[in-house]
Amino acid sequence: MAVKKLGAQSVVFQNPPVIAAASSVAGPKEGQGPFGPDFDLVLGDTLNGQKSWEKAETQMLLESVKICLKKAGIKSESVDFLLAGDLLNQITCANFVARDTSIPFFGLYGACSTYCEGMALGAMMVDGGFAEKVAVCSSSHHNTAERQYRYPTEFGAQRCPTAQWTVTGAGAVLLSAKGSGPRITHATVGRVVDMGLKDVNDMGSAMAPAAADTIKRHFSDTGRRVSDYDAILTGDLGFVGKAICEETLRRDGLDLGGRYDDCGVILFRKNQDVHAGGSGCACAALIFAARLMRFLKEGKYRKALLVATGALHSPTSCQQGEAISCVAHAVSIECEGGGS
Amino acid sequence: MAVKKLGAQSVVFQNPPVIAAASSVAGPKEGQGPFGPDFDLVLGDTLNGQKSWEKAETQMLLESVKICLKKAGIKSESVDFLLAGDLLNQITCANFVARDTSIPFFGLYGACSTYCEGMALGAMMVDGGFAEKVAVCSSSHHNTAERQYRYPTEFGAQRCPTAQWTVTGAGAVLLSAKGSGPRITHATVGRVVDMGLKDVNDMGSAMAPAAADTIKRHFSDTGRRVSDYDAILTGDLGFVGKAICEETLRRDGLDLGGRYDDCGVILFRKNQDVHAGGSGCACAALIFAARLMRFLKEGKYRKALLVATGALHSPTSCQQGEAISCVAHAVSIECEGGGS
Repeated sequence: MAVKKLGAQSVVFQNPPVIAAASSVAGPKEGQGPFGPDFDLVLGDTLNGQKSWEKAETQMLLESVKICLKKAGIKSESVDFLLAGDLLNQITCANFVARDTSIPFFGLYGACSTYCEGMALGAMMVDGGFAEKVAVCSSSHHNTAERQYRYPTEFGAQRCPTAQWTVTGAGAVLLSAKGSGPRITHATVGRVVDMGLKDVNDMGSAMAPAAADTIKRHFSDTGRRVSDYDAILTGDLGFVGKAICEETLRRDGLDLGGRYDDCGVILFRKNQDVHAGGSGCACAALIFAARLMRFLKEGKYRKALLVATGALHSPTSCQQGEAISCVAHAVSIECEGGGS
Repeated sequence: MAVKKLGAQSVVFQNPPVIAAASSVAGPKEGQGPFGPDFDLVLGDTLNGQKSWEKAETQMLLESVKICLKKAGIKSESVDFLLAGDLLNQITCANFVARDTSIPFFGLYGACSTYCEGMALGAMMVDGGFAEKVAVCSSSHHNTAERQYRYPTEFGAQRCPTAQWTVTGAGAVLLSAKGSGPRITHATVGRVVDMGLKDVNDMGSAMAPAAADTIKRHFSDTGRRVSDYDAILTGDLGFVGKAICEETLRRDGLDLGGRYDDCGVILFRKNQDVHAGGSGCACAALIFAARLMRFLKEGKYRKALLVATGALHSPTSCQQGEAISCVAHAVSIECEGGGS
């Protein structure tokens, strides 16, 4: 059998799965950002016609799957497996979407790294011959995350400058063994990195070392260079974490130069009062569908590296004095003829 | 490429991954049950030398991985990927075990179905050529689950007859591309089934339809018959759920006969006051390592089907009026020369 494992943490796909479609459903604040016109659907309000924000998030995630399958021109019955996760305790939204679509289901928890975790696993399932079509989806919601992880939303706690704004949104991708379009060629699976940081209002600083670890490992495992990529995007480090990630890599001799950006940095406008930037599972999902995927399809980008970053803390573990463990998973995506 | 997908929900492995080792770490009550002498380690108390039950559960899960790797004669550096999950919000124990072992990590959430969810995914990764060795582990703890899902433990709430006792324990398996031993030959991935049940003190009734759905699908997808298996074991339906699962399948023309049992039914003695039986991720993990794996290695069983069952509810979704969604994942395990 051909070698599919590269180095300690990466895999290379022999028959790289095609990303047949990607969808984006965004909250109202996200819709007012620079990518507003590029999202498939922008909600009028954060309740989305539901009685709770949790139900609203579930509906968003379900809608993202429906839009994705519609774009790919298939029904849910044709999807072999669904890989999904979100930030809610017990990944509530993902479970209900699996129930409502009836697709055989693997539940994932990787916090905000879930989108790339799912793409990496889904690509293995397709490339390994276990599935023709795998759907991957993930969501986050500002209000559900805020009240689960930090304070009751009614409390109106003041936000500090390092705090990020959890993105309200959902995204889905359909991976396919056949067809044409951008393909997932490599995946680098993250190790959990814990630098001892405990400030839940500064996720960027906690996640940056995990992102740097995975990016460094991606290049050493695959033998690729930064210049091989048109864009390298981390998921949700925000302004604080992005600077730390860049500086960490630079000190290790890896200069990402002008090719690097962070989804949490670019998702909102500067005047949208999100402090250190966006965060949440939807951060990478929205930017992937609205920008990366579009640029790859239009030929503006030939190769891109998406590195979704996740802070794996829980309110309970933080209360018990534990630091914030973090992880980052990377996937290489290339347009047709992107070379190897 | 050879056909690896069977029917709507199953896969068959071309080079069935070997289960190189399986480990079991049990709580004190579990150690007093009929399988006490068969566990690798039985804790003296539920705190396991830690300051909180959550930390105790993390240590148990870590210990289960260490024992498993020791049995297999390898170090954690030789493990390609870790697939892990538990019942705690944000799968806290799994995250910390990934941190402490530094193995590239995929976090899973399938409630008590996690053990088989991990085995199914891990087997795909090994059979697909992406890994030589994959570790899968899962844990549960009576006290951490009780206070997260139901009442503060100090409250001393009376337990009703349908209530199950969350098992304190952890288990790990090492899947390997090479070597000898029982092998995972098939996996049937569950769909999420929600029959509208809302009683969080009766998980067995909620999960039974999901178990029946996956078992039925396993036989129709693979063309196998009940008589092909020496044992069919569900994870944690308990006495109430087991009876419903059996009856549901019997009405559908599938008589599991004397080959069927449930890990939650057999894990404790009748006089151990666990009401409807055991539950939790560790239920299937402990019985797999202490009984199934032993019987397969000793040749008492040639083929077994393990069907881990999970209730995917969250306290929040229940408070918001949602029913208990459930899922069950099945893996076929055969000893050497078990035939196809």
